[in-house]
Amino acid sequence: MAEEKKLVEQITSQEKDFAKWYTDVCLKAELCSYSGVKGFVVIRPYGWAIWENVMNNVDARLKNMGVTNVAMPVLIPEHLLVKEKEHVEGFAPECAWVTCGGDDILEDRLAVRPTSETVFCDYWREVVKSYRDLPQLLCQWGSVVRWEKETRPFLRTREFFWHEGHTLHATPEESLKFTLDILYMYEDFIQSDVAIPVIKGKKTDKERFAGAQATYTVESIMRDGKSLQSGTSHDFGNNFAKAFDIKYLDKNNKLVYATETSWAISSRIIGALIMVHGDDRGLKVPPHIAPIQVRVVPIRMKDENNVKAASDLYDRIKKAGIKADIDLTDKTPGYKFAECEMKGIPIRLEIGPKDIESKKCVLVRRDTGDKIEVSLDNIEREIKELLEKIQKNMFETAKKFLDSHIDTATTKEELVTKMNKKTRFIKAMHCGDEACEEAFKDETGISSRCIPFEQEHISDKCVVCGKPAKYELIWGKSY
Amino acid sequence: MAEEKKLVEQITSQEKDFAKWYTDVCLKAELCSYSGVKGFVVIRPYGWAIWENVMNNVDARLKNMGVTNVAMPVLIPEHLLVKEKEHVEGFAPECAWVTCGGDDILEDRLAVRPTSETVFCDYWREVVKSYRDLPQLLCQWGSVVRWEKETRPFLRTREFFWHEGHTLHATPEESLKFTLDILYMYEDFIQSDVAIPVIKGKKTDKERFAGAQATYTVESIMRDGKSLQSGTSHDFGNNFAKAFDIKYLDKNNKLVYATETSWAISSRIIGALIMVHGDDRGLKVPPHIAPIQVRVVPIRMKDENNVKAASDLYDRIKKAGIKADIDLTDKTPGYKFAECEMKGIPIRLEIGPKDIESKKCVLVRRDTGDKIEVSLDNIEREIKELLEKIQKNMFETAKKFLDSHIDTATTKEELVTKMNKKTRFIKAMHCGDEACEEAFKDETGISSRCIPFEQEHISDKCVVCGKPAKYELIWGKSY
Repeated sequence: MAEEKKLVEQITSQEKDFAKWYTDVCLKAELCSYSGVKGFVVIRPYGWAIWENVMNNVDARLKNMGVTNVAMPVLIPEHLLVKEKEHVEGFAPECAWVTCGGDDILEDRLAVRPTSETVFCDYWREVVKSYRDLPQLLCQWGSVVRWEKETRPFLRTREFFWHEGHTLHATPEESLKFTLDILYMYEDFIQSDVAIPVIKGKKTDKERFAGAQATYTVESIMRDGKSLQSGTSHDFGNNFAKAFDIKYLDKNNKLVYATETSWAISSRIIGALIMVHGDDRGLKVPPHIAPIQVRVVPIRMKDENNVKAASDLYDRIKKAGIKADIDLTDKTPGYKFAECEMKGIPIRLEIGPKDIESKKCVLVRRDTGDKIEVSLDNIEREIKELLEKIQKNMFETAKKFLDSHIDTATTKEELVTKMNKKTRFIKAMHCGDEACEEAFKDETGISSRCIPFEQEHISDKCVVCGKPAKYELIWGKSY
Repeated sequence: MAEEKKLVEQITSQEKDFAKWYTDVCLKAELCSYSGVKGFVVIRPYGWAIWENVMNNVDARLKNMGVTNVAMPVLIPEHLLVKEKEHVEGFAPECAWVTCGGDDILEDRLAVRPTSETVFCDYWREVVKSYRDLPQLLCQWGSVVRWEKETRPFLRTREFFWHEGHTLHATPEESLKFTLDILYMYEDFIQSDVAIPVIKGKKTDKERFAGAQATYTVESIMRDGKSLQSGTSHDFGNNFAKAFDIKYLDKNNKLVYATETSWAISSRIIGALIMVHGDDRGLKVPPHIAPIQVRVVPIRMKDENNVKAASDLYDRIKKAGIKADIDLTDKTPGYKFAECEMKGIPIRLEIGPKDIESKKCVLVRRDTGDKIEVSLDNIEREIKELLEKIQKNMFETAKKFLDSHIDTATTKEELVTKMNKKTRFIKAMHCGDEACEEAFKDETGISSRCIPFEQEHISDKCVVCGKPAKYELIWGKSY
């Protein structure tokens, strides 16, 4: 048990230092490690396996919506990047610039893509001629580079992984509809499969994406009360189409501008998963996206019968389509248990000599810590049912946390006092003025998360300036 | 039929200009398009879907071999790249260099990864401590950048897609075994699923990978007689382990150097697929990796019953697990047929009013052009059997071509004359001297493809210099 303690003791507790706890878990659960390249991490097999499950899940959902994948160049010439004014102002300051290719000094330097609206538009200008070519529903899986000053694994790194979807439509109505369809899909994926409750809404003008007409977001809350943007969907209207001159012949044979959207979920969702579900023993991975759903641990490694029974059980479970592995290393059972917990494996299955005699084994739930003795007869069914129970319980636990971390405020003092006492979401009215919002953020560090789709009337006046209120905002402290 | 002609007439014939035919097919089959970034292409949905099938197939094979995926930084600092001398000499001249991040000028410039041996080694130095941590069987799917001067879609572009596998082992025997296991896997994939016959062998010292101890390759021949390296596997021994100081504690508690391998198949395989199987009507995609295996074409689009019968048939086929689509556009049947051929869809299924009455339809094979009338009763089974037949026939056709394009030579004159008369593989002996091989390549443009595993004794003397022969080489003109 000395070894077990060692593994857990290496983690700072959430209460003591949440940020330190977070990086401890990232490293000890072997999700990632620091790299020799400043601001970049190595995503290790266990971390990448979670991301692969996210990719497979979302890719299947996108294909069902008619989206196909493509690959655009990783390097974007500066002359393309500057075409949409607001967009380049947003991204140019954080680009990594290629200035030499081989021995040549480049005249037009190239950005390692920070996002790809510009190259998609450049492509569409070439291939889209008529209404028959629309809609274009495209997506690219890969990574992008943004020169962040402060970095944290999965939350903010100079390279991060994502899909970037880009679509082109015939009318503003169609692009708006698709922007929202994607948002609803994100909501369903994050809630049903990552077990994280979200609040849907629209970003204020201050917070919207550089170059977009409207940005929609799903926001979630971490265990330290801070909020994290977990997915975004942008409607550009024809901002980019005008900048890139993307016109098509409509059914009346008239040349008109197309409309565009873009949207993304990134490897940040792994950061959210860690901070919403994790505890002082480590990670908790929701069964739907867990690379290992069940780990079998034989109790007596020196007992050949025990090892054989455990291996047979492992084979049975795997054959039933459950993602399982078995720990046959020479570590102590206590250490193995601690490792299961650190990696957040939903179910640990312990089997010892006595269990074999009585044709039973012990299932240990990572979400609650409960130990359940079950007969080996229906073990496959038991596990499958339990995985769904765990998935559901993880969502409900997170939902309770969210519900207990939403409050309201009607004055600036109330908003600030409440937020400083306990970081959370606070609902309060706003006048809609960008300058008012910005000054408040600069002063207090509290930012608007979104204009929630479900609007409530908290009061008549703007919580910041007291002028007549335009809408309700969700305020928070963001990652 | 005017439209049909138009589509096909836009392609140059193979005989007239093979290179032009190749790019025509790339563009007309909508595999890719040129981008606004010099030397980079856009891989369009149909091209990417083929690559996705390659990825899924090979990824499953790798996972069966115990390989797990990871993500290493896309940018590599120059100080890491220069650690292995031969390696940096091979790659530095063709790197794209990032010299500015945001507004900062970088002291240590960063290469957009041309290949990732160095970052993998940097990672292993941190995480590998004992024999318990070995083997490390890792792979990364993504793209790399090499500053090529002349580019051609899929064959040579400044960015290309691949997997790069990197493994670390305890002993030279283990790394050699794994290098070869990968080569055999590549052979099976390329032959069984891409329907391209290959010759396995070892590269000569002159042709081996920069920094490797030995490079193994699978070589294939295109319809113009030129050869293409279709997959490579490198055994580094402990070259990199020494340069990066990667040592582990072995079972006797002694610190020893690990050994390393790396291996790759790239999007070049799509170039091979085009040039091995294609003809003057366009692409032919082998059923095992075809994004669309069957396209249903209703003959009378204005006949509602015809459209409904075609749609029902399409649903039936899809439900049976066959990758199908249906062409319900308002183009003429002739144009639709030509499009099926251009895209290399293995089976075209034509159904008209008469067929519905007689409960039949017409299957058209892309590989042979044969039209087969079949009953609708067992259509799913018929299609599945036919797809396997087509897969097999495509391999056999390519194998016959390969067999008729291998010759032998015993003198320099014979080798050069034969190669100039008809580009092909020529077997001939070599003395093993790097300088001899290099001078001959510079003079004639003929290069050694590999030292084939199946050695034959063609003669006693080196075909170039006449000195005693060391081994048989396969010579060719390469892409």
